[in-house]
Amino acid sequence: MTLWSGRFSEPTDADLRALNDSIGFDIRFYAQDIKGSIAYAHAIADAGLITKDECGRIVEGLTLIRQEFEQGIFVLAPGDEDIHTAVERRLIEIIGDVGGKLHTGRSRNDQVATDFRLWTLDTVKALHQQLGLLQTALVEKAEQHLETLMPGYTHLQPAQPITAAHWLMSFFWMLQRDRDRLRDAHPRIAVSPLGSGALAGTPLAIDRIELAERLGFAAISENSLDAVSDRDFVAETLFVLALTGTHLSRLAEDVILYSNPLFGFITLNDRYSTGSSLMPQKRNADPMELARGKAGRLIGNLTGFLTTLKGLPSTYNKDMQEDKEALFDAVDTLQKLLPVVIAIIHTLHLNPEKMQAALGEELLATDLADYLVNKGLPFRAAHHVVGRVVRLAAQENLNLSQVPLAKLREISDLFSADVAQVFDFAASVARRTAPGGTAPNAVRDQIRQAKQRLDSLSE
Amino acid sequence: MTLWSGRFSEPTDADLRALNDSIGFDIRFYAQDIKGSIAYAHAIADAGLITKDECGRIVEGLTLIRQEFEQGIFVLAPGDEDIHTAVERRLIEIIGDVGGKLHTGRSRNDQVATDFRLWTLDTVKALHQQLGLLQTALVEKAEQHLETLMPGYTHLQPAQPITAAHWLMSFFWMLQRDRDRLRDAHPRIAVSPLGSGALAGTPLAIDRIELAERLGFAAISENSLDAVSDRDFVAETLFVLALTGTHLSRLAEDVILYSNPLFGFITLNDRYSTGSSLMPQKRNADPMELARGKAGRLIGNLTGFLTTLKGLPSTYNKDMQEDKEALFDAVDTLQKLLPVVIAIIHTLHLNPEKMQAALGEELLATDLADYLVNKGLPFRAAHHVVGRVVRLAAQENLNLSQVPLAKLREISDLFSADVAQVFDFAASVARRTAPGGTAPNAVRDQIRQAKQRLDSLSE
Amino acid sequence: MTLWSGRFSEPTDADLRALNDSIGFDIRFYAQDIKGSIAYAHAIADAGLITKDECGRIVEGLTLIRQEFEQGIFVLAPGDEDIHTAVERRLIEIIGDVGGKLHTGRSRNDQVATDFRLWTLDTVKALHQQLGLLQTALVEKAEQHLETLMPGYTHLQPAQPITAAHWLMSFFWMLQRDRDRLRDAHPRIAVSPLGSGALAGTPLAIDRIELAERLGFAAISENSLDAVSDRDFVAETLFVLALTGTHLSRLAEDVILYSNPLFGFITLNDRYSTGSSLMPQKRNADPMELARGKAGRLIGNLTGFLTTLKGLPSTYNKDMQEDKEALFDAVDTLQKLLPVVIAIIHTLHLNPEKMQAALGEELLATDLADYLVNKGLPFRAAHHVVGRVVRLAAQENLNLSQVPLAKLREISDLFSADVAQVFDFAASVARRTAPGGTAPNAVRDQIRQAKQRLDSLSE
Amino acid sequence: MTLWSGRFSEPTDADLRALNDSIGFDIRFYAQDIKGSIAYAHAIADAGLITKDECGRIVEGLTLIRQEFEQGIFVLAPGDEDIHTAVERRLIEIIGDVGGKLHTGRSRNDQVATDFRLWTLDTVKALHQQLGLLQTALVEKAEQHLETLMPGYTHLQPAQPITAAHWLMSFFWMLQRDRDRLRDAHPRIAVSPLGSGALAGTPLAIDRIELAERLGFAAISENSLDAVSDRDFVAETLFVLALTGTHLSRLAEDVILYSNPLFGFITLNDRYSTGSSLMPQKRNADPMELARGKAGRLIGNLTGFLTTLKGLPSTYNKDMQEDKEALFDAVDTLQKLLPVVIAIIHTLHLNPEKMQAALGEELLATDLADYLVNKGLPFRAAHHVVGRVVRLAAQENLNLSQVPLAKLREISDLFSADVAQVFDFAASVARRTAPGGTAPNAVRDQIRQAKQRLDSLSE
Repeated sequence: MTLWSGRFSEPTDADLRALNDSIGFDIRFYAQDIKGSIAYAHAIADAGLITKDECGRIVEGLTLIRQEFEQGIFVLAPGDEDIHTAVERRLIEIIGDVGGKLHTGRSRNDQVATDFRLWTLDTVKALHQQLGLLQTALVEKAEQHLETLMPGYTHLQPAQPITAAHWLMSFFWMLQRDRDRLRDAHPRIAVSPLGSGALAGTPLAIDRIELAERLGFAAISENSLDAVSDRDFVAETLFVLALTGTHLSRLAEDVILYSNPLFGFITLNDRYSTGSSLMPQKRNADPMELARGKAGRLIGNLTGFLTTLKGLPSTYNKDMQEDKEALFDAVDTLQKLLPVVIAIIHTLHLNPEKMQAALGEELLATDLADYLVNKGLPFRAAHHVVGRVVRLAAQENLNLSQVPLAKLREISDLFSADVAQVFDFAASVARRTAPGGTAPNAVRDQIRQAKQRLDSLSE
Repeated sequence: MTLWSGRFSEPTDADLRALNDSIGFDIRFYAQDIKGSIAYAHAIADAGLITKDECGRIVEGLTLIRQEFEQGIFVLAPGDEDIHTAVERRLIEIIGDVGGKLHTGRSRNDQVATDFRLWTLDTVKALHQQLGLLQTALVEKAEQHLETLMPGYTHLQPAQPITAAHWLMSFFWMLQRDRDRLRDAHPRIAVSPLGSGALAGTPLAIDRIELAERLGFAAISENSLDAVSDRDFVAETLFVLALTGTHLSRLAEDVILYSNPLFGFITLNDRYSTGSSLMPQKRNADPMELARGKAGRLIGNLTGFLTTLKGLPSTYNKDMQEDKEALFDAVDTLQKLLPVVIAIIHTLHLNPEKMQAALGEELLATDLADYLVNKGLPFRAAHHVVGRVVRLAAQENLNLSQVPLAKLREISDLFSADVAQVFDFAASVARRTAPGGTAPNAVRDQIRQAKQRLDSLSE
Repeated sequence: MTLWSGRFSEPTDADLRALNDSIGFDIRFYAQDIKGSIAYAHAIADAGLITKDECGRIVEGLTLIRQEFEQGIFVLAPGDEDIHTAVERRLIEIIGDVGGKLHTGRSRNDQVATDFRLWTLDTVKALHQQLGLLQTALVEKAEQHLETLMPGYTHLQPAQPITAAHWLMSFFWMLQRDRDRLRDAHPRIAVSPLGSGALAGTPLAIDRIELAERLGFAAISENSLDAVSDRDFVAETLFVLALTGTHLSRLAEDVILYSNPLFGFITLNDRYSTGSSLMPQKRNADPMELARGKAGRLIGNLTGFLTTLKGLPSTYNKDMQEDKEALFDAVDTLQKLLPVVIAIIHTLHLNPEKMQAALGEELLATDLADYLVNKGLPFRAAHHVVGRVVRLAAQENLNLSQVPLAKLREISDLFSADVAQVFDFAASVARRTAPGGTAPNAVRDQIRQAKQRLDSLSE
Repeated sequence: MTLWSGRFSEPTDADLRALNDSIGFDIRFYAQDIKGSIAYAHAIADAGLITKDECGRIVEGLTLIRQEFEQGIFVLAPGDEDIHTAVERRLIEIIGDVGGKLHTGRSRNDQVATDFRLWTLDTVKALHQQLGLLQTALVEKAEQHLETLMPGYTHLQPAQPITAAHWLMSFFWMLQRDRDRLRDAHPRIAVSPLGSGALAGTPLAIDRIELAERLGFAAISENSLDAVSDRDFVAETLFVLALTGTHLSRLAEDVILYSNPLFGFITLNDRYSTGSSLMPQKRNADPMELARGKAGRLIGNLTGFLTTLKGLPSTYNKDMQEDKEALFDAVDTLQKLLPVVIAIIHTLHLNPEKMQAALGEELLATDLADYLVNKGLPFRAAHHVVGRVVRLAAQENLNLSQVPLAKLREISDLFSADVAQVFDFAASVARRTAPGGTAPNAVRDQIRQAKQRLDSLSE
């Protein structure tokens, strides 16, 4: 028997119950639901709607129910549509009819919004920390490779030499933005809808602000119609997680590429590699492929939920029940993925000699153009000259440094013997000292900045 | 210990296993996996790679394992990454080392593709039937309302009178297209990848065509690289289900609107209505709101999976493991939803008197223009004349039929006393007899066509 | 001839140019591109790489080019791949070879990121203001309807009476969150990538911070690899616009529903209504249907771009060129839509008598339960009692207030003659005075809060 | 002045017109619109609603208008909301009031659906052909590389040797499925909605079947409500194009990877490579990066449009106007991309010596296991033995063939001197002769099958 069966002459259909009931997934809110109900009991007691004694019995009953959940001995009953009705049903079983007073002036509409916001606040905090751990892993690994040279690619084609530390740190800043977005979302999550009733507000003289504070919210909702149907906090969190997933997919792509033996820049630890049922030699970066693939899932969760919201009429509609499984799936996905990615970075083995071997002199073509600029040629002309040198070298199958000076001078008489100094990868890297550049000193500064961000956010 | 641990010096990390293992969801394939393995045992026996006796022992062992699954007594072991390794591990436990011969020339890459295709074939067939049941419900309900008049809307504004049967049947054809799409997808699903090995094909002399036939496939894959990584059948099925969900969302929107008391055109059966924890009078169409909302989820599943596929390098990559949960979720969503929607249509109560009451004479404005066309006025001019009549009526707060003939004649002298005959909703409907029109006779023909489609597909 | 043709022995294919060139859409950045180049010229002059005189000539040339664009007389040349090459090509035409010095140490990778960020900053500011105008329209309309009663719906079923002001204001807060999200995105957009070169940073001694300040950025990027490929600001803006679109789609759904004559709660101004080519009476809310439908497009833009980013290897890849058309389309969509929606709200006619007529006494069922609670019945029991009363009234086809007291007392003896006072819609509304509630006084407070938000943001 | 202005007392707002009018993009339908109108004129003439002479004048007028469009001299007028009103307006200008008879019994709702379906039929046919050209390019390139060996990857890790022809052909089959899906969509596109009126069907005695045949449709719609609002054909085409785009993105990923010099397997022709504004050596595969990136856009178009359709009430709603720009963008995207991809495949240079150099003996580990299987070891045990051999070789930094036989025999005494024969890449490939395998003979058969598909479809 459901809470609301009084109005109906026939019981609800079993297939409908299977479709409609949310207890299968919103049971995850038990702690938040009970916390919210305890606060609400105090609020209606303060407002004189129940006695102190009644409040005490309700709180006691709820505390007992929480223990039942924690001990895994809470038993669902057939009428338990959702966590709210399950808790209320059990409360009345334990403390009798007085339990039926708890829902005065409250609706499941404001109750579920309260529970979900409390849960999301906890979750966002936990994810924020996990992302910080991944950032820490990147910083630690980068510090070991400040002087390790590797090819930098654009369009996956050799571009300029960079340091491995610089490459690792590039992911730090993506994650930093993700963390900043989680932080910015916080005040929009931390809004208490409790006291909005079903849609029109509560007629009870409860103190919504005190109630919000009791629950750890930062503010109260300003419009009850909006409060019961605002799922922006879900959409926004889903977006931040989808973008985080996209960042992880880019890290994953690099790790997968660089683990291919033709690159060979990195080796995943055995503990994070997997094999094949058929091919005995296999050593796959499965977890990074999952990191790449699951970005799709996270984007799908976001898209699906925005689509669900599209075109809904005012206030609460049952469509909104789709909010929970979407966010649960996104959060679970990242919470399974992140520990593995963190461990992979921590245990990642870089192979500087393979990186070194992949440095071709074409990576210094820009430096060669800069050499001509220093001799007075406008950059655009210098670029064109070097383009011709590169073409010549390719045709003759020579490295750039192997092109005879005479040949160079046929293309531009600005070339002279000192051109040989250009062909030094470490010097090229060391020149890029402006903030954000790949020079070891600049990367040291970058890491200093990064550590400050980690510190300031972990307060 | 995993299948492939020989090559590694350290065991796999536990977090990685939690992320990587698919046994949590691909256990759903146990029947297909065992069916595939039995067929494969016969194939390698026919090819002389195992003896008849070995084949017999393998088949016996697999049959026993199937019984264990069916009886719910199969016990997972720690190394069981997925259904394939679970079955192989258990097989070796039961029949000894000879079980280790089954995987000769086979890879999990072709095996999982085989299992998933077999499962999808069964699933598509089941969904095809369920959609047919919903179509049947629509036809049966329509047959009861061939003469029931209601307002037809475009832009949700009153447009022209229609019959309720015509409205109900409009959803039949959406679902028919969905069924046709499922049918068209069939030959692309029913392609056997077995015998493709990990990617390069099998060196064994197995007869792939006979193997495919044994398993009920219609064809074999033509390129082993493609075969192990073709997930088009998943994407295509996800698309068909997403569009089906979109159709259900449109039906849902109408049912929700028409259940609002200001419309009142329909009443959901008590068994399919739900109430409120706070507002005792409530009678919500929850399941139809879920039908509307879950279209988002289905679209999200499609989008997410296409995104996962984007940009993957050739052949199998672990990202593709995301295929299963996406399709499982989509299928489960519809398989929970459809029985409820079918029952709702079967038990839907139409309120012809409320429909009748909502028929305003402005719905006949087009008929009024047609009246002028019959008197020789070009349609475009007639439209303009009637527009002025409508504006006049609105200003004077009159029904169209209440505008005095004299006033009409001020606007156009083609109006005469016979104009009164225009204001007959049933006559308006009855005039639309061209195929696909709303006239009862046309709808009778339409239903006849519809039944033929149902018959031809259920063969 | 392209900028980089020196290295190639064959000219680029024409079809490739048609596919590859971005000048067709990035011409929109001409002002930002020239602004960025002027600042960059000063920066390299300050660093001693060009003389003051050369800088002066470059700035003069660029200023002239801007005028050409503004006057619509800039002529594209065949080699103009994008706005950057078009401007540089023209600059060299005007001032000669010295123009070729401008690109020293700069890459199109950091240049386009700079241009796009400058453009997005302007755009976000403009959208922020437009959303504020829509909020203002809602507030002004709400102030006229503080006492106008209407049915409040949940699940589109009658729930409780509310005021029209409260309904209008519910959209204010959705938009407020959108504006807050735009504000929060600002510091992540206002980051200067200039000086990152192609990927490795600049070897020039330019002052990146001063350069950023000259351009109005709030900070500089910390890692050059990230800087040239960070498109988070695009994804984040697309998300905020998609969610804004979702909010507008919900407003649209209400307006469309309430314009249906069976509701009749509102009438769109003639200037914002449209007709039919066939049905002369038609009066459609076309623009609100577009507002609803275009949410799909905005969600598609977001999804598409996140999908493009998924799995890209480090630093710049050409795939990222997809960033611009996606954001341009989203911005244009809203910038066309918002003025119309604003005007519709400003000119919206509410029909209080139709709203009043739609108030059924079932909307007071919760108040009836509260009546019993006040007599001492626990709410859950009161809810059940009223459920039975509602069912009885429905069966006997009575309004709640028409159920005889004797019948009521058969269900619960707590009913007495004073129950009649419950059936007063205005009183029900007036009771909901807690913050965020629908009582006129609470809505007055709400509007006061809203105006403060508008003021604080317009500073 | 719009067509439908008679009913309104105020002109439409200019901003609304800018938002609402579709002439900016549906002008693309001019040929289809005129073709449809000519057929419709004949149909209403046959039905006796206009005289033969009137029909002749209408057809003449429409023919003239088509010429105006073709010659680029058609001039839009301020009231031209869409292509239908533009054509009708011009028709009346040319032939006078009789032009106003054309719209009798027709609505823009069935007219636009007709136009769009005709356009889509043409477009799908053109795309089908273009995909066939790409398949032809793949076949031609494959035929040149039947014996070219290269490493086959799974998880981007070396797996087994394959032939380059086999790799190229793997994309053939993806595109074949895309073409099959386009073919299957055809009968669902080729359904004539004409004669459905605005929603309720036509009261005119026109022969819908003959009208459909005149226009080249294969069938007529069965339900007028559905006919005017069925956009499944758009969604289905968008899906097929999105999946095609996904296939191209996978081809692109391989081409990009294999163009990286560490792979060096392929070289793009100069005409299809692009350079850098800063780095003179650059040679980027820009068009393939766009091919990869634009899959996102295509997926976004699909997602956005499905989202737009979600939850729409019955029959036509203005939201559906979003159908056209989504499909236009998707079609234009592919029609710009495909010629470039086709040319890239045609001119692609494969570097067999680089492929050969990348063949490591670990690719033969499966063959080594098969060797043990042939000696009687169950495959699972053989896999484990070879895993240990691989580990040993890695530890000792040896190729597999360099592991001394004595060491091998320590691991398994089944190894004997004949093991040396295993280490032959060509032999490994040649063994995989089962249909779909990588052996040259199997690939020859595959190509034969492929050519039959191309022939049968081009009829």
